Amino acid sequence: TTKMKIFALNSNQKLAEEIAEHIGLPLGKSSVTHFSDGEIQINIEESIRGCDVFIVQSTSEPVNENLMELLIMIDAVKRASARTVNVVMPYYGYARQDRKARSREPITAKLVANLLETAGATRVIALDLHAPQIQGFFDILIDHLVAVPLLSDYFLNDSGIDLDNVIIVSPDHGGVTRARKMADRLKAPIAIIDKRRPRPNVAEVMNIVGNVDGKTAIIIDDIIDTAGTISIAASALVKSGAKEVYACCTHPVLSGPAVGRINDSVIKELIVTNSIALPEEKKSPKIKQLSVAKLMAETIVRVHEQKSVSTLFD
Amino acid sequence: TTKMKIFALNSNQKLAEEIAEHIGLPLGKSSVTHFSDGEIQINIEESIRGCDVFIVQSTSEPVNENLMELLIMIDAVKRASARTVNVVMPYYGYARQDRKARSREPITAKLVANLLETAGATRVIALDLHAPQIQGFFDILIDHLVAVPLLSDYFLNDSGIDLDNVIIVSPDHGGVTRARKMADRLKAPIAIIDKRRPRPNVAEVMNIVGNVDGKTAIIIDDIIDTAGTISIAASALVKSGAKEVYACCTHPVLSGPAVGRINDSVIKELIVTNSIALPEEKKSPKIKQLSVAKLMAETIVRVHEQKSVSTLFD
Ligand SMILES: Nc1ncnc2c1ncn2[C@@H]1O[C@H](COP(=O)(O)O)[C@@H](O)[C@H]1O
Ligand SMILES: Nc1ncnc2c1ncn2[C@@H]1O[C@H](COP(=O)(O)O)[C@@H](O)[C@H]1O
Repeated sequence: TTKMKIFALNSNQKLAEEIAEHIGLPLGKSSVTHFSDGEIQINIEESIRGCDVFIVQSTSEPVNENLMELLIMIDAVKRASARTVNVVMPYYGYARQDRKARSREPITAKLVANLLETAGATRVIALDLHAPQIQGFFDILIDHLVAVPLLSDYFLNDSGIDLDNVIIVSPDHGGVTRARKMADRLKAPIAIIDKRRPRPNVAEVMNIVGNVDGKTAIIIDDIIDTAGTISIAASALVKSGAKEVYACCTHPVLSGPAVGRINDSVIKELIVTNSIALPEEKKSPKIKQLSVAKLMAETIVRVHEQKSVSTLFD
Repeated sequence: TTKMKIFALNSNQKLAEEIAEHIGLPLGKSSVTHFSDGEIQINIEESIRGCDVFIVQSTSEPVNENLMELLIMIDAVKRASARTVNVVMPYYGYARQDRKARSREPITAKLVANLLETAGATRVIALDLHAPQIQGFFDILIDHLVAVPLLSDYFLNDSGIDLDNVIIVSPDHGGVTRARKMADRLKAPIAIIDKRRPRPNVAEVMNIVGNVDGKTAIIIDDIIDTAGTISIAASALVKSGAKEVYACCTHPVLSGPAVGRINDSVIKELIVTNSIALPEEKKSPKIKQLSVAKLMAETIVRVHEQKSVSTLFD
């Protein structure tokens, strides 16, 4: 039978190790270093001929460095005669550049899909793509996992909050489907934050659609980047009578002022996954990271064994 | 008739401006910035519909950042309905990873060619590729310019050295063809530095093939990176009787200890081109930069006018 090998690149070594541990395999041996001029040098240090190879890499910050590492690794794996080249991308960078919002803009999310294919990827395993349409940017196989079950299970089993008094909040119209899915799992109602700008150059007004009075509000989003919207949304919820506010998301981008804003906000706890590794300076007692290692490991094993992964999707 | 537009990215703004000035056109308006999380955001700020677009970018350090800028710009230009997307790459990063020197290595120079094509480039204008075979990595059109005439003209017209007493030196066997071309222009003999390692783990010995006694030696190479070899070669030439040593190359990568080594070496002057912009900290009174702007500008105009560029190649 075909052997399976899992390789880690530099974005998320710890997650890759956890995945390998779940599967009960050691990580494949490879070295990813830099030449003196900054060019990436990759060496695969064991035979992978005829194997199903899984490369674990999130294209989180530094996104261009991590993406080039991934492309060069794919090239090396392909040329080393792997049977399949599977890219495990817990976080897909550039996902928000998924359409021309203005004239003469690139569509970088599509470009990245093409680059992965060109380098030689035969399959991509992704998690909560910013837009599910990004699946259609690929001509190769793509598995699209979701983190709602993992996040929901935390609130159901480990958070200690009163589940009879919860309301799930979508921070914008685009996220209602996700909020609905979580609400189903928690058997809770939903509310939606309806942002609008009364006139140009006037501050946005946050109007809450739904009754949050006396409730424990849980805001759910896919990405939290600078945390501006979420902090303001949390205040608006409290102003509308919410008793306490939790927030959760799949991808903790947390760039720039994000962690400070979370710490200063009325948010009681922010639950995120480890799709993006958090460096020390982005850690906070308010931020709790749940691991997607088991989900990723199960997917990898099923892909390798050519079994359906669809039950992992919802 | 089709209009021509020239855009600069961030690697080598000054060269792009010089090129545009030679042609007598303003640079195209575009903005290349970063989102808070480090993702590149590109906007083309004027219509380029139906135009021949030339994008000037060297993939020098930071190579991965510069390469991604280029790929995203190509995508934006293509989607903005340019007629042709021409990439002017005075320095082609990753050119030294042009073959599998060991098992399970990537061939990143080929990967980069594929990425440029996938993004939507229709033509590449390159200068002194580390191996001319890299031209064959492309299925799209490629023009391959050389800097030997420019470097030779400096020694012929501006250096003030006694041209009757010159010898051109190739620092290795791979560079003999280049040295031969320069020697023809300067009507000078050539010498070759013949490195060999007598036994494993014993220092290399530099043997000089050719008589440099009493001569002004001019070492020519394509890339000077850490400047280790060239400094040692210069000492070996002096030990063998050379009166003085000049060095020249097309691409001043000059990474890590390079500039210090050049300053401390017996090299009298190092002549380079501006295919790679030198930041302040890499400047030195010993290093002289010649501009390839005129060569690039002439090539761009001829490509745009669909005239032969072959006379610019030798
Ligand atoms: N890395 C990024 N950081 C912040 N905004 C981005 C980023 N990438 C794309 N965008 C913008 O985010 C918008 C897409 O977000 P959304 O409406 O949530 O799909 C687009 O208008 C993009 O210009
Ligand atoms: N950026 C780089 N810096 C230093 N060495 C490199 C770089 N890229 C590739 N190489 C190595 O340089 C060798 C090729 O150089 P050459 O023999 O001059 O063509 C290969 O063995 C590569 O491993």
